[in-house]
Amino acid sequence: MNIQEIIAKKRDKQELTKEEINFFITEYTNNNIADYQASALIMAIYLNGMSKEETVNLTTAMATSGDILDLSEIGTVVDKHSTGGVGDKVTLILAPIIASLGVPVAKMSGRGLGYTGGTIDKLESIPGYKTNISEEEFIQNVKKIGISLIGQTMNLAPADKKIYALRDATSTTESIPLIASSIMSKKIAAGANKIVLDVTYGSGAFMKTKERAKELANEMIEIGRLAGRETVAVITPMEEPLGKNVGNNLEVIEAVEALKGNIAEDVKNVVLELGSNMLKLAGKGNDLEDNKSKMMDNILNGKALEKFKELVANQGGDVTYIKDTNKFEKAKYILPVTLEEQNGIVKELKAEEVGKLSVFLGGGRIRKEDKIDPSVGITLIKKIGDKIEKGDTVAYIHANDEEKGKEAVQRLKEIYVIE
Amino acid sequence: MNIQEIIAKKRDKQELTKEEINFFITEYTNNNIADYQASALIMAIYLNGMSKEETVNLTTAMATSGDILDLSEIGTVVDKHSTGGVGDKVTLILAPIIASLGVPVAKMSGRGLGYTGGTIDKLESIPGYKTNISEEEFIQNVKKIGISLIGQTMNLAPADKKIYALRDATSTTESIPLIASSIMSKKIAAGANKIVLDVTYGSGAFMKTKERAKELANEMIEIGRLAGRETVAVITPMEEPLGKNVGNNLEVIEAVEALKGNIAEDVKNVVLELGSNMLKLAGKGNDLEDNKSKMMDNILNGKALEKFKELVANQGGDVTYIKDTNKFEKAKYILPVTLEEQNGIVKELKAEEVGKLSVFLGGGRIRKEDKIDPSVGITLIKKIGDKIEKGDTVAYIHANDEEKGKEAVQRLKEIYVIE
Repeated sequence: MNIQEIIAKKRDKQELTKEEINFFITEYTNNNIADYQASALIMAIYLNGMSKEETVNLTTAMATSGDILDLSEIGTVVDKHSTGGVGDKVTLILAPIIASLGVPVAKMSGRGLGYTGGTIDKLESIPGYKTNISEEEFIQNVKKIGISLIGQTMNLAPADKKIYALRDATSTTESIPLIASSIMSKKIAAGANKIVLDVTYGSGAFMKTKERAKELANEMIEIGRLAGRETVAVITPMEEPLGKNVGNNLEVIEAVEALKGNIAEDVKNVVLELGSNMLKLAGKGNDLEDNKSKMMDNILNGKALEKFKELVANQGGDVTYIKDTNKFEKAKYILPVTLEEQNGIVKELKAEEVGKLSVFLGGGRIRKEDKIDPSVGITLIKKIGDKIEKGDTVAYIHANDEEKGKEAVQRLKEIYVIE
Repeated sequence: MNIQEIIAKKRDKQELTKEEINFFITEYTNNNIADYQASALIMAIYLNGMSKEETVNLTTAMATSGDILDLSEIGTVVDKHSTGGVGDKVTLILAPIIASLGVPVAKMSGRGLGYTGGTIDKLESIPGYKTNISEEEFIQNVKKIGISLIGQTMNLAPADKKIYALRDATSTTESIPLIASSIMSKKIAAGANKIVLDVTYGSGAFMKTKERAKELANEMIEIGRLAGRETVAVITPMEEPLGKNVGNNLEVIEAVEALKGNIAEDVKNVVLELGSNMLKLAGKGNDLEDNKSKMMDNILNGKALEKFKELVANQGGDVTYIKDTNKFEKAKYILPVTLEEQNGIVKELKAEEVGKLSVFLGGGRIRKEDKIDPSVGITLIKKIGDKIEKGDTVAYIHANDEEKGKEAVQRLKEIYVIE
């Protein structure tokens, strides 16, 4: 078996065998296949596609290319994954609710890159919170308090990391088999038994249309089924940012408020949709509406917020910030954004553009090694469908650089499309 | 402009502009584009094709990526190129004939790789012959005696070299726009004003069918037209090896014999077809049959052989080997190949298989750095269409290793298909 023959098969639209896919992944992980050979194969996969069986074999090969987290001590672990969005603070709200209902949450999250944020960056804006703990500590935390949220500390799915970097540099990201196998391989390596997926679509997501999102969701459900990981997917729009805030401190504050019951309608819908499915997969009830009620109960009775405080304290974070969110550092300049248009209704507020504006202010990364400023961001008062009267303040820019802040105000005015 | 956007365009079946192609070739030659990006683009070109205009722009960009040989001192230079074959000693015979008819021959040839041979390896089997001379000496030689045959000493079309190596490693060789631009870019960089192409097809050639060979020929003729280099193509079969011998010393001896008039029918046809077209392009006569007669005249009157001796002497070679080809070193073992079949006719004698057998005996290279044994090879007494009687010797194996020789005898017996 050699890589040229494997490339030639996929080039000629033939199906690769499990052995061929394993050979590619193993040898590429061990640097016995060159990047330029891998990228030729990836382009051939992009253009000629992969069968369901090939995609499952690719997923399994990537999942087993490095460490595999063994969570069997904890029992059934239901993991959650979102394909990415702007203002997505769902994990911060959802995880403590689920844990407060007795379902263990052992979750590894990622950092933000490009215009989308990352849960780990948000958690790190809580002073003292340690995202980089050992595997043992991680498991012990879940056994002790039922929840732990950390970063990706282990060598999980290294083949996926190499291929992901290659895809970014060779314009081969938007391929359903490649996206599906990338996500599912990481989830499987991270020890999930059951998986709930939030597949986003729209201007802020990988998938631009609902149809493509459904296609991706179906592919991942099928991979999960064939890999023995029951998987459920929820399709959610990401045309505009999720919730009211974009920016790390601002989103943690919004999450704490949500856990107190002050939750934006769009955030609430996503949290309840995902959570009710997670509870179902965990065997806590087959009626999704019942499950949603249980979740709302634990918001209203304070148990979910209590669990969040427990999580923060247990991981070294300063809980006084959660008790009094005014303690979070504020940006130096908080600038109102006012539209000069006549009265009207917000028609468009592109998530991708708002995400890029947050990166511009210092709230995100362009390159992996960039530092993040947790205090900057954007607060959206008016969102799609809201009525606007002339002179209304529609948003606030939180900036630490006055010039950038002023420029951001101008840019946000253009992002708002009124009709 | 950036390479990701260029890859994405070709991935999406869009046509690349001249600027985009120039950007790719310039930046790739300067190592500012990674091999893995180039190979992704090459695979996209392989699968989605290129328009005529794109192919011409790619050819021109590669041709100008390094040195360009300026042969204007010499006048109109008609170059000849073959897409490769087994037993192809055509240049050794054709070049002196053409030069003896007053048309300057300034030709850079390649080395053999894989199962096809190379003119430079054949010339180097003449003791003393220098294939590695300076550009100035090369031009002076042509001005002085009307002919010089050398190796590729300059930095001609370095972009093509890089892409060619990449294609070999990524299963993207058999693409008409990529083959056509590779050949034509080298010819243009080597200073040709007019070009005659020998496009081979069959088991010993890149193109397996006559139709594909015609397609490739038309593509190159069109590139030549658009690049201002008048180009003519001859389509020749390469189902079986060309002529009677495969192996470096053996082929030089066969070429010398041909120049004395003892020329195999298939070799004669190719030499006359190509040569008559070269003479026409050089303005020496529009009637191809007349041109063929002139060529035959110069074989029969000894002028062509004289020109070959002049070439060898002028380039430091020992002419006594040409005067008496018995001086060439013989292989230690010359083993007859006898078929046990009943009477019949040779139906198949695959060029590719015979070429591989020559490599096995040490007469060719698998890797660029391999050394060649000039004395080994195969002499084919019977070829396709020849009658065979039981017990006839159909060929001889020339080997320096007895075991390999015996194995080669067995293998050649299987290569002969009799019906």
